[in-house]
Amino acid sequence: MPTTAHSIVLASRPKGPPKPENFRYESSTLADPADGQFLVRTIWLSLDPYMRGRMDDAKSYAKPVAVDGIMEGGCIAEVMASNHKGFAVGDLVMGYFGWTTYAVSDGKQVHKIDPNIAPMSAYLGVLGMPGLTAWTGLNVIANAQPGETAVISAATGAVGSLAGQLAKQKGMRVIGVAGGAAKCNFAVEELGYDVCLDHRAAPDSKTLADQIAQAAPDGVDVYFENVGGKTLEATIVNMNTNGRIAVCGMIAWYSGLGVENAAPAPFIWRNILTRRLTAQGFIIFDHLDRIPAFLAEVAPMVANGTIKYRETIADGLENAPTAFMAMLQGGNFGKQLVRVGDDP
Amino acid sequence: MPTTAHSIVLASRPKGPPKPENFRYESSTLADPADGQFLVRTIWLSLDPYMRGRMDDAKSYAKPVAVDGIMEGGCIAEVMASNHKGFAVGDLVMGYFGWTTYAVSDGKQVHKIDPNIAPMSAYLGVLGMPGLTAWTGLNVIANAQPGETAVISAATGAVGSLAGQLAKQKGMRVIGVAGGAAKCNFAVEELGYDVCLDHRAAPDSKTLADQIAQAAPDGVDVYFENVGGKTLEATIVNMNTNGRIAVCGMIAWYSGLGVENAAPAPFIWRNILTRRLTAQGFIIFDHLDRIPAFLAEVAPMVANGTIKYRETIADGLENAPTAFMAMLQGGNFGKQLVRVGDDP
Repeated sequence: MPTTAHSIVLASRPKGPPKPENFRYESSTLADPADGQFLVRTIWLSLDPYMRGRMDDAKSYAKPVAVDGIMEGGCIAEVMASNHKGFAVGDLVMGYFGWTTYAVSDGKQVHKIDPNIAPMSAYLGVLGMPGLTAWTGLNVIANAQPGETAVISAATGAVGSLAGQLAKQKGMRVIGVAGGAAKCNFAVEELGYDVCLDHRAAPDSKTLADQIAQAAPDGVDVYFENVGGKTLEATIVNMNTNGRIAVCGMIAWYSGLGVENAAPAPFIWRNILTRRLTAQGFIIFDHLDRIPAFLAEVAPMVANGTIKYRETIADGLENAPTAFMAMLQGGNFGKQLVRVGDDP
Repeated sequence: MPTTAHSIVLASRPKGPPKPENFRYESSTLADPADGQFLVRTIWLSLDPYMRGRMDDAKSYAKPVAVDGIMEGGCIAEVMASNHKGFAVGDLVMGYFGWTTYAVSDGKQVHKIDPNIAPMSAYLGVLGMPGLTAWTGLNVIANAQPGETAVISAATGAVGSLAGQLAKQKGMRVIGVAGGAAKCNFAVEELGYDVCLDHRAAPDSKTLADQIAQAAPDGVDVYFENVGGKTLEATIVNMNTNGRIAVCGMIAWYSGLGVENAAPAPFIWRNILTRRLTAQGFIIFDHLDRIPAFLAEVAPMVANGTIKYRETIADGLENAPTAFMAMLQGGNFGKQLVRVGDDP
């Protein structure tokens, strides 16, 4: 019995911030799963900053989404029909099915999840790629050590909120930077940051730099970089000799906005040189072999409530573009999800 | 018997490239060395790009030279009188005596040299700080490996010329970037670079990037960064996943020139992120404990002629400012020295 899938496709490539006309909602008919395939029904869709890069036709670490192609994304889904021996009807799985209500999969990069350990949606956030990103960036890339001081940008985002909590667990002084008083309060009250600074309230990077200097009396050893922009410029001038920057994202610059006001390259280079910093870029898809070590450490802390997380939920696939556009401007609070279908 | 010393002092802080009026030649009278001191007569003075930074009143890894203070610099000198038990009259030493004909020293950061292994001046270049910088940057910071491809900027300079030769010895493909056809010919014919590209002949970084792409069919794994500017912009877009940048200098930007035309920070950051690069700044004064390992490897190769080096010599201390200003514009060819006094 053929299935009707609703999907969001890339209608056109954005110039600058994505606009509604760059997306199109459409229907298609899926054939029954062939041998070695199975049919899934999406329950949760994850929205992540990296998707902005996939909308451009630029050389990067991953191929762009094709125009008229379904937008990429990680999902939690239920297996509805299966001709695949590894997946049975009723299984709950995480996979990159895209912005769609139904999909046929061959099982590649798909794994089963256990909703008894944590709610299903957590497998797209704190126990998913964002969580692995936070854990890898802090421990592997930045080599964070107890007693050091860390600055975490996008401090309450899907990645930052776990990075900050893990840094506190490690015994670091942890300074968050986030947009708006509500996020900053949450960072300190709920996530346990020592201080959280509101970059929106700082008129320029110099002001923010002075605030970081006050909050970090011993200087900054580790910077978890998610944003670029003013926060980078304010943090790098506070870094200690031999400091480490885990370059995970630069959302402030993803749409090309603010680039004209950005510091010139020599500013970055001079700080790297004179402070003997190490700036290392990383992409989580290079580190999937770390999943077992990550889950072994973090899943128990999520299950027992030591690690907290927050979600912003958009209802219905048709609202995914709006939620995505808002997220790129910092409109989300914690992990951005789209509720695509009902729980089983 | 008091000694008259001639010195070059910092008359005023330069804005942009140093000008003659920023220097002043003057005389002073040195008291006889007290207990624990000795008097030296300078034979060779080293001129190095880092000195430009010392002329600014900016926070950096070292204190600035004071206005009216003697310009800093490494020297080869002869001990003329001594009340220090570690140094005797006639000893030849390397020390940071500054731009001066005579100095009194307490022996800190001074070590004896052996002119039988290599000519005295080599201890300011290929066997001195520039040599140690090349060796450390290539091996320790960039972790260069046989079979990889390296780009060396300022390829015939004091640091670059050794970095390039050591990279060849290691079995790498080595691409130099230098200013002018004469330097490029020397790099290939004498130093053994596989290719050397003339950044002055390339109208923009895009052209230079295309030339590097041609010269590096397997991409670039290691970039030894001495210059910043166009060469950085052209190299970073050719780097392979997990490439390493040893950030040793940025002479193109030291005087603030070209900063207005430099790529914005997001350009650098995006390449570090998407290519998963590691950019690490280093300052050689953090690595002085590596001197024995460095000399054990490199001194025999200098003594037997495997490692070649070239010097540009200015005659007389009074000509040091002119030679220094020219060096910052790439006017030197190999290690820039000033002959301050006669050989013993």
